[in-house]
Amino acid sequence: MGNELKKLKNAPSFISWASVAGKKESEGPLGTLFDICDKSDRFGEDTYEKSESQMQYSALNLALSKIRADDKTLDCIAAGDLMNQCTGSAYGLLPFDAPYIGLYGACSTCAESLLVSSLLIESEQFMRCAAVCSSHFCSAERQFRYPLEYGGQRTPTSQWTVTGAGAFIVDRNGEGPYITEVLPGRAIDAGITDINNMGAAMAPAAYDTLKRYFTLGGKKPSDFSLIVTGDLGYEGHSILLDLMKKDGIDMSGVLRDCGLMVYERQRQDMHAGGSGCGCSAVTLAAKILPEIKSGTQSDVLFISTGAMMSPASVQQGNSIPGIAHLIHISNKR
Amino acid sequence: MGNELKKLKNAPSFISWASVAGKKESEGPLGTLFDICDKSDRFGEDTYEKSESQMQYSALNLALSKIRADDKTLDCIAAGDLMNQCTGSAYGLLPFDAPYIGLYGACSTCAESLLVSSLLIESEQFMRCAAVCSSHFCSAERQFRYPLEYGGQRTPTSQWTVTGAGAFIVDRNGEGPYITEVLPGRAIDAGITDINNMGAAMAPAAYDTLKRYFTLGGKKPSDFSLIVTGDLGYEGHSILLDLMKKDGIDMSGVLRDCGLMVYERQRQDMHAGGSGCGCSAVTLAAKILPEIKSGTQSDVLFISTGAMMSPASVQQGNSIPGIAHLIHISNKR
Repeated sequence: MGNELKKLKNAPSFISWASVAGKKESEGPLGTLFDICDKSDRFGEDTYEKSESQMQYSALNLALSKIRADDKTLDCIAAGDLMNQCTGSAYGLLPFDAPYIGLYGACSTCAESLLVSSLLIESEQFMRCAAVCSSHFCSAERQFRYPLEYGGQRTPTSQWTVTGAGAFIVDRNGEGPYITEVLPGRAIDAGITDINNMGAAMAPAAYDTLKRYFTLGGKKPSDFSLIVTGDLGYEGHSILLDLMKKDGIDMSGVLRDCGLMVYERQRQDMHAGGSGCGCSAVTLAAKILPEIKSGTQSDVLFISTGAMMSPASVQQGNSIPGIAHLIHISNKR
Repeated sequence: MGNELKKLKNAPSFISWASVAGKKESEGPLGTLFDICDKSDRFGEDTYEKSESQMQYSALNLALSKIRADDKTLDCIAAGDLMNQCTGSAYGLLPFDAPYIGLYGACSTCAESLLVSSLLIESEQFMRCAAVCSSHFCSAERQFRYPLEYGGQRTPTSQWTVTGAGAFIVDRNGEGPYITEVLPGRAIDAGITDINNMGAAMAPAAYDTLKRYFTLGGKKPSDFSLIVTGDLGYEGHSILLDLMKKDGIDMSGVLRDCGLMVYERQRQDMHAGGSGCGCSAVTLAAKILPEIKSGTQSDVLFISTGAMMSPASVQQGNSIPGIAHLIHISNKR
């Protein structure tokens, strides 16, 4: 109806954020940047599902602690994860006394939760929101693929679910970085049926969102210091570059992918790269936001990408739709 | 931080809605009111999961058809369901060309999706949103409980998941009914661990939301022609009445529950009542909104209730948190 690209009048500011990560992530290129790591991947809990909840709790609790803020200052928490019925968020965030808006956007949840939080603040009914999400390699493997004990062989295009959680507190007031624009994604089904090739399923959605952004917003890739997708991995990243190139848009200099930033490919043997809600969340919290804050980056397009499938939907012969939500983060309003 | 109760400046109007229901629902007290029924519960599909997606598609398609509107007029679709990874919504709504915001609020999704849609319109960035949700008895049974073929015995407090989908188009302009206030719910864990007693798990959340509403809004139950919860069932409904009574608030004359309206208890043998996202959705679409439109009802508090558990979380010993989102629907702005 109107312009799908929303330029925010009340561009909210990130006022605090925190990252929590597991063993493999702590050994990767961003390892020294995470706030909290646990080499056991357990976070003090006896099941991996509870560990994931604990990661969400720890991330939001630390983000609040950094600014000495009480949970009662939150007008709402917008959160989600990959576990069935989003129990990572439901249980992990239960200790916080704040209204709760549960989201499901698969691995796009980081940008989705920030997009929803921004629009709630844009409504002038909310002053401060928390956006939280997580993924855990072990809870994801046993839910989506095989029990870890089975030791299933991984295909070259398969990605490694990041054990990580990110929490972001966005406020109507603050000194930046700011979320100045948001563009909600559309579900795009490119016909991919290979559950081990999520990158290929998500790349067309990222292409659709980026294409719409450049068309609607009148900007070009070189207007940004960084354009970063959530977890396309090597396969999806190269597909996205190709799709844009066919439209005459060369993004090779500016386009990166959190799934390629979080692990070191050869040394860590994670095949096509990182994935999961936690992938873009911990990269945003540990690397991108600090770089914007310090001035290393100025204008960043952050596009989390999700594959909206379930094991049952794939078993029943459905192809895998992707979705990509975009937020524009800037050091100025 | 501010007042959690949001009185909307741009109270959106319901401009169209549709309900889709299954066999048991079509035989219940609201049977003649549903737009679309399918006595096979299949909706032309070969699996129940696909049937549920088809129900969401049919509901939104009919809601659009009723006003001769194109999907391109939708600024976004906010939707969710109970299936793992919310595939009922992801696949069912894929044919619509509109930005998609995936939600997970368990059975609270109907009010949650309307609340989120209202706030997006409140932001003045969105003109028209669709809120859609569904549940299907057969997909829910095999996911949350037992395969249907097993013929498991049901306990007296167990509820019957409604096979139903509702789609609601809300617009900044229109002639009502209007969503004039929204109050997002908080997750409340009252320690219930019985997966067959969702009513008891959700009632404390409904109590928390209603209590906050009356405290924050300065209103009392008698200010409303109807206060209706989503799917507390007999058990949860009586718990909620008791909790309110302890606070000196008698709601017996005005409080109803969609789970008690959708089936006829004795004749249809559904134990403690209806449940599922579809329960409050089809009741709102088929009965409540038409009654407001016709003047039979004037001011309605609509509170969908959800239990934020998964089979895995219960098996791992967690109790079941509930959540209840509230919207105030009125025939005047």
